[in-house]
Amino acid sequence: MPDFLAFNTPIQDAQIVFLGIPFDGTSVFRSGSRFAPEAIRSVSEVLETYSPYQEKDLSEYRICDAGDLPLLFGNTEKVLSIIEEKADELLAKGKRIIACGGEHLITYPLVKSYLKKFPNLKLIHFDAHTDLRTHYLGEKYSHSTVIRLLAEYIDPKDIYQFGIRSGEKEEMDWGMKNTRFFPFTLEGFAEKISDIGQEIPIYVTIDLDVLDPSCFPGTGTPEPGGVTFIELLSALLELRNRNTVGADVVELAPDYDQSKISSITAAKVIREMALLMSQS
Amino acid sequence: MPDFLAFNTPIQDAQIVFLGIPFDGTSVFRSGSRFAPEAIRSVSEVLETYSPYQEKDLSEYRICDAGDLPLLFGNTEKVLSIIEEKADELLAKGKRIIACGGEHLITYPLVKSYLKKFPNLKLIHFDAHTDLRTHYLGEKYSHSTVIRLLAEYIDPKDIYQFGIRSGEKEEMDWGMKNTRFFPFTLEGFAEKISDIGQEIPIYVTIDLDVLDPSCFPGTGTPEPGGVTFIELLSALLELRNRNTVGADVVELAPDYDQSKISSITAAKVIREMALLMSQS
Amino acid sequence: MPDFLAFNTPIQDAQIVFLGIPFDGTSVFRSGSRFAPEAIRSVSEVLETYSPYQEKDLSEYRICDAGDLPLLFGNTEKVLSIIEEKADELLAKGKRIIACGGEHLITYPLVKSYLKKFPNLKLIHFDAHTDLRTHYLGEKYSHSTVIRLLAEYIDPKDIYQFGIRSGEKEEMDWGMKNTRFFPFTLEGFAEKISDIGQEIPIYVTIDLDVLDPSCFPGTGTPEPGGVTFIELLSALLELRNRNTVGADVVELAPDYDQSKISSITAAKVIREMALLMSQS
Amino acid sequence: MPDFLAFNTPIQDAQIVFLGIPFDGTSVFRSGSRFAPEAIRSVSEVLETYSPYQEKDLSEYRICDAGDLPLLFGNTEKVLSIIEEKADELLAKGKRIIACGGEHLITYPLVKSYLKKFPNLKLIHFDAHTDLRTHYLGEKYSHSTVIRLLAEYIDPKDIYQFGIRSGEKEEMDWGMKNTRFFPFTLEGFAEKISDIGQEIPIYVTIDLDVLDPSCFPGTGTPEPGGVTFIELLSALLELRNRNTVGADVVELAPDYDQSKISSITAAKVIREMALLMSQS
Amino acid sequence: MPDFLAFNTPIQDAQIVFLGIPFDGTSVFRSGSRFAPEAIRSVSEVLETYSPYQEKDLSEYRICDAGDLPLLFGNTEKVLSIIEEKADELLAKGKRIIACGGEHLITYPLVKSYLKKFPNLKLIHFDAHTDLRTHYLGEKYSHSTVIRLLAEYIDPKDIYQFGIRSGEKEEMDWGMKNTRFFPFTLEGFAEKISDIGQEIPIYVTIDLDVLDPSCFPGTGTPEPGGVTFIELLSALLELRNRNTVGADVVELAPDYDQSKISSITAAKVIREMALLMSQS
Amino acid sequence: MPDFLAFNTPIQDAQIVFLGIPFDGTSVFRSGSRFAPEAIRSVSEVLETYSPYQEKDLSEYRICDAGDLPLLFGNTEKVLSIIEEKADELLAKGKRIIACGGEHLITYPLVKSYLKKFPNLKLIHFDAHTDLRTHYLGEKYSHSTVIRLLAEYIDPKDIYQFGIRSGEKEEMDWGMKNTRFFPFTLEGFAEKISDIGQEIPIYVTIDLDVLDPSCFPGTGTPEPGGVTFIELLSALLELRNRNTVGADVVELAPDYDQSKISSITAAKVIREMALLMSQS
Repeated sequence: MPDFLAFNTPIQDAQIVFLGIPFDGTSVFRSGSRFAPEAIRSVSEVLETYSPYQEKDLSEYRICDAGDLPLLFGNTEKVLSIIEEKADELLAKGKRIIACGGEHLITYPLVKSYLKKFPNLKLIHFDAHTDLRTHYLGEKYSHSTVIRLLAEYIDPKDIYQFGIRSGEKEEMDWGMKNTRFFPFTLEGFAEKISDIGQEIPIYVTIDLDVLDPSCFPGTGTPEPGGVTFIELLSALLELRNRNTVGADVVELAPDYDQSKISSITAAKVIREMALLMSQS
Repeated sequence: MPDFLAFNTPIQDAQIVFLGIPFDGTSVFRSGSRFAPEAIRSVSEVLETYSPYQEKDLSEYRICDAGDLPLLFGNTEKVLSIIEEKADELLAKGKRIIACGGEHLITYPLVKSYLKKFPNLKLIHFDAHTDLRTHYLGEKYSHSTVIRLLAEYIDPKDIYQFGIRSGEKEEMDWGMKNTRFFPFTLEGFAEKISDIGQEIPIYVTIDLDVLDPSCFPGTGTPEPGGVTFIELLSALLELRNRNTVGADVVELAPDYDQSKISSITAAKVIREMALLMSQS
Repeated sequence: MPDFLAFNTPIQDAQIVFLGIPFDGTSVFRSGSRFAPEAIRSVSEVLETYSPYQEKDLSEYRICDAGDLPLLFGNTEKVLSIIEEKADELLAKGKRIIACGGEHLITYPLVKSYLKKFPNLKLIHFDAHTDLRTHYLGEKYSHSTVIRLLAEYIDPKDIYQFGIRSGEKEEMDWGMKNTRFFPFTLEGFAEKISDIGQEIPIYVTIDLDVLDPSCFPGTGTPEPGGVTFIELLSALLELRNRNTVGADVVELAPDYDQSKISSITAAKVIREMALLMSQS
Repeated sequence: MPDFLAFNTPIQDAQIVFLGIPFDGTSVFRSGSRFAPEAIRSVSEVLETYSPYQEKDLSEYRICDAGDLPLLFGNTEKVLSIIEEKADELLAKGKRIIACGGEHLITYPLVKSYLKKFPNLKLIHFDAHTDLRTHYLGEKYSHSTVIRLLAEYIDPKDIYQFGIRSGEKEEMDWGMKNTRFFPFTLEGFAEKISDIGQEIPIYVTIDLDVLDPSCFPGTGTPEPGGVTFIELLSALLELRNRNTVGADVVELAPDYDQSKISSITAAKVIREMALLMSQS
Repeated sequence: MPDFLAFNTPIQDAQIVFLGIPFDGTSVFRSGSRFAPEAIRSVSEVLETYSPYQEKDLSEYRICDAGDLPLLFGNTEKVLSIIEEKADELLAKGKRIIACGGEHLITYPLVKSYLKKFPNLKLIHFDAHTDLRTHYLGEKYSHSTVIRLLAEYIDPKDIYQFGIRSGEKEEMDWGMKNTRFFPFTLEGFAEKISDIGQEIPIYVTIDLDVLDPSCFPGTGTPEPGGVTFIELLSALLELRNRNTVGADVVELAPDYDQSKISSITAAKVIREMALLMSQS
Repeated sequence: MPDFLAFNTPIQDAQIVFLGIPFDGTSVFRSGSRFAPEAIRSVSEVLETYSPYQEKDLSEYRICDAGDLPLLFGNTEKVLSIIEEKADELLAKGKRIIACGGEHLITYPLVKSYLKKFPNLKLIHFDAHTDLRTHYLGEKYSHSTVIRLLAEYIDPKDIYQFGIRSGEKEEMDWGMKNTRFFPFTLEGFAEKISDIGQEIPIYVTIDLDVLDPSCFPGTGTPEPGGVTFIELLSALLELRNRNTVGADVVELAPDYDQSKISSITAAKVIREMALLMSQS
């Protein structure tokens, strides 16, 4: 595998570890997010290593592309435990993980692992969908249940949900009642997370379908009416000078976007997230 | 045919009837809107039945997917009379029609039929193009003449045109002089239709190319500089608590958008329109 | 769901039952065969109901499109038992099944069910790959192990494999030693199955990647050097006047072929197979 | 319009006139053959002007690209009369026409015109479909009826049909009984037309879907099991030293083939046909 | 070549000359901008000749489509001198040029030529990238160095850069220090160019990747976070009543956008620019 | 870069070195062969390491994927000298090179280098085009002149050309008179090279457009009427037990084939060539 952008610090020296998790085993509509890690590496040469938004360059930080986790299909629970073990191992070594799905279910084992190390973790969730179902087509483990699953391990009041614009009535109601639920837009993002202290550990999970299909067509369940790339980026930049200890970027399905702008957008989100998580 | 979304009330019990009208016989640039009804049904599983915008669920209303009207090509006038007869039949039974084209010419027989039943009908027209030509390539019946054709049956002052950003000088001038002509944007939509009383019957015709090509590439004549999905949706939501008795959604050409976001967008517009037209 | 072609006999009256099995949960390279049943129904209007090859018309036979089996993802074993139960139920009613995958693993529960009713079943297998692995990426149930799994239930000498042109050395060797293994081409097909008596029940499993990628690009693992459609059809026509009691057609991944010729080819294979299995 | 290849003789000096007829008004499945003339001109720079098959170069002959006939949609009969008048005009000037559709219905007015000048014309027809219906979806004028329509003007025994592999039973039976009907392949082509004398005028109509979808995916109704390009070319080359006075090449729908090999194939067929029709 | 839109004044009578420059020889990521001139001519029939934004019609002005400059590949310097000579020739005849690339390097010889005639020229540059490198992969002449190359001929303070959102740190710093550098957005465009007098000659170079990939996916190096078409158009309209003597529109790579909205957008930008440059 | 298939021997231990040469600077029609090396690595997981045709496994041989040669665009002669130096270096170390273009011009420096080491080299050339022009669009170094360029270094009678089906009359005539010229098919390949002794060093250059566009659409200048994959493979297998010391595989343009069958085909050709060149 080629490294993503300039993520070329040897793993033992790295502060940030980028990890591909090419799993899309519970996708119901169109799948293919398994190809996302390869796709973002392939397009990463379009991007510069320098972010004019943060005025920082990847070359100044210690970031490693650890390649893809080897996974199989057809046995979801085994996959989830492989991911959780890998996260445990990296966290034990003091690394910060930025993962690239795959589908959204991969967030479940990642955040479970983080909660063991950071019991006071706050979860910031960008998505078009609530992902708050209790079951989906009879299954407990699904990209549609992932946040509800996590609500068994983390106080729903520590979950901040942004950009949601689709769900069953029951999910939407549960979210509005239990989590910090800010549907439709990212307006007022800074204020809405202002109660999170500077030192509190934050995990950011970005389901890229929070973006409008116009700028991100390459995803399994595109939902019209989303935010622009600039709106998402502006929200993320509010995390500067905060303590983001982990992140994932999920649900890029590259084969549904021949123009590859979805892959490039995902790559740019990852570049910015990696810089946000990096400390000099 | 599978039903679109949860449009599964038997037709005799339905208040709203969804009808596919797969006709694109006068398309001049790229055609294929004949495949639109099939395409929106195929993608409809991506969408929920619940609208968080209206806080209503399709399951609470009586909506029927009546399938596609069987049509042929090569004889436009015969097609137009088949559509008009079908509309006459449904209106006689007290149904409200939401039609999915096909091309924009299908609006002509539909509104002609509506005017027989609702002589005081107001026509709200979303489009990138004026559709106000008197002839197009020598033909009177065309997607480019449809609104002008209707102006023989309805007072142009009862036609409200929004989003227009393309036309010949003559069309634009005629529109500005005769119809309620609000080009370029949807700003001030609520105010601009505020003279329509609560009980006045309204017919809404949405040429989806009113949307910017970024969010709706899958159409015959994409015209840069359009409105966003959210802007269109916000305008439509102003029709809540009004008397929308009929609607059509036209000019999706699904084969020109491999990512299918155009089909999904059209499906979401139809979901919202159907809920807007439904009465408890 | 619309019926496939003229497969419109009510299920209780049908001799042949067409069943969509949209499962692709163990696909490792590119997935999407879950969309195959919908795709072939969508394109079936291109085809006639009459086969000039067999001089038979679908309208003369009792064939039912029973729709798609409702399945979920992430729990392969549960899926396999749902398929097997459905096959048991249909066979108990005396139906002949023609299934459309999905991926090749669906053949496992289908043939297991058939073997309960027809212990002397012969299995004719068209494929580019041996599917004879014992494990694949650590998993026993996989599209790459399906024929080997079946070899635990049926004497390998009752398995006739045609068109194989890819595999690990071990698989190829095992096949050559144990099954009736006719790699690369379909030449001499009639002679190679000539030891199967006229009354012996036959099950035909067609992995469509046996076809050359030139005529069938829309599949998960295209393998250059395959047979042409005419060569496959000519082999199938040798089954006239034999006792084909069941069949499946698998591994169409329609989203990888924008031209839809793969979907149309799959549909034509199913039309011909259904006619071959029909008895006046 | 740029000229197709080196078809750059001024029309008054030309022996052969190439004419685009961008009409697809009766297409029922997927349309877009209206874009074929533009598409073949656009790709023609891939091809050489020299044919190694005929050892002739376009530059040695007097061929004119006369551009596209201006047509409209929605009124089939008017379109047919425009085409016929244009053909009458060119034939009156002693030109030989090679037309590029558009859909197959354009052959009807072309051959009608030819028959006025050449009452003893023989019609050679390559196609996947019989095109022998009497009506199609209630209409008399259709791409599915075009040869049957012509059988009212020309003795069916002067129609030679090749490559047919799809049709309703009635069409196939009518063809077998009335025309010179050679289904499935082009084998023995030379012999099958050997009763046509050297001086007898021949019109060749090539529905490009006679080709297998593997080499020609970009067409409205692809039908698996067709001939290869080499097989079609070999048949055409048998027309050397015969008196081919007119030809058309129809049913390229370029937007369904992103790779453009269908457009290039159509262009090569036209280059070879033009050389075959040219006389020193 | 067909004329672009109504650019059909004979060249000797034209005030504005449209010139295709199909060169993409230094593209490093994805190329194909060589096909841009053909693509915009092909889609231009979608557009009207009338601009409702400027209330002007192309038919009222003297504009010529001069076709494409014949170029070759593999020898960049020779290409650059061919372009410069052509510009010299047209400027000597008093024409105003609007060029369509091709890649951005074509601006170098064009502006060099303009500076010979208009020493006090101001350069307005829209782009996602600074194009201010001194070398790129060891080469001096590149689409990434084009503005820096020009800074040897024109005072950097006469270069106005808008929309830049990507570059190496060194380029960005150099730009901020030397040119009039307005990154990220086009806000305040009118004010930012307000020091340019009404009579001062202006050259406008539009790298279309200044647009967001959502509305312009068909380009070599799409960069998320760009401006909308309306934002670009609004900036351009500020040039009304100014003295724009030359312009180019570059970096459309049409084959990466199957929906063709990028080509249509480029065509509309060119229509508006041509009208802006035209004088009654 | 990930290794291609199992080409994972360290370079110092390797007998065969696979080298990507991503140069397409002189492509005139559609370019993008620069992306070929990345594309074949990306799809290589579809293929097995075992060849049932040769009954050999890559794991038994010492083959190294040396990655891609770093190149730039816009200066063809510099690129050619970089390639030649790299080949000189590898040949000096006793390696056998199998190169993946890029365009066909890369063969020029490779074979020049080989001729220095192997003065009695025979060149076997598979192609749709003669590549025998003396100049192309005024340039000497071009994919259209590459074999003619080499004919200055090697006796044309040592050049064996197969599959040619396109060229200007002059090229074809020159080929027929000077090289061993076997146009159109690969029939009799074994016999036609039978005068090459067992020990004579052979270099094989495969322009993949020798394949028919049906099995290889993803190339710059597809030419209908080519050979099938099996026909090409059968010819290559005739090189078993001969002394093939070098090879290249060129002109895959992956972005023109969304189905990726062209990339997979190229990968399979390379696997077979590498095994053919490997000695135990």
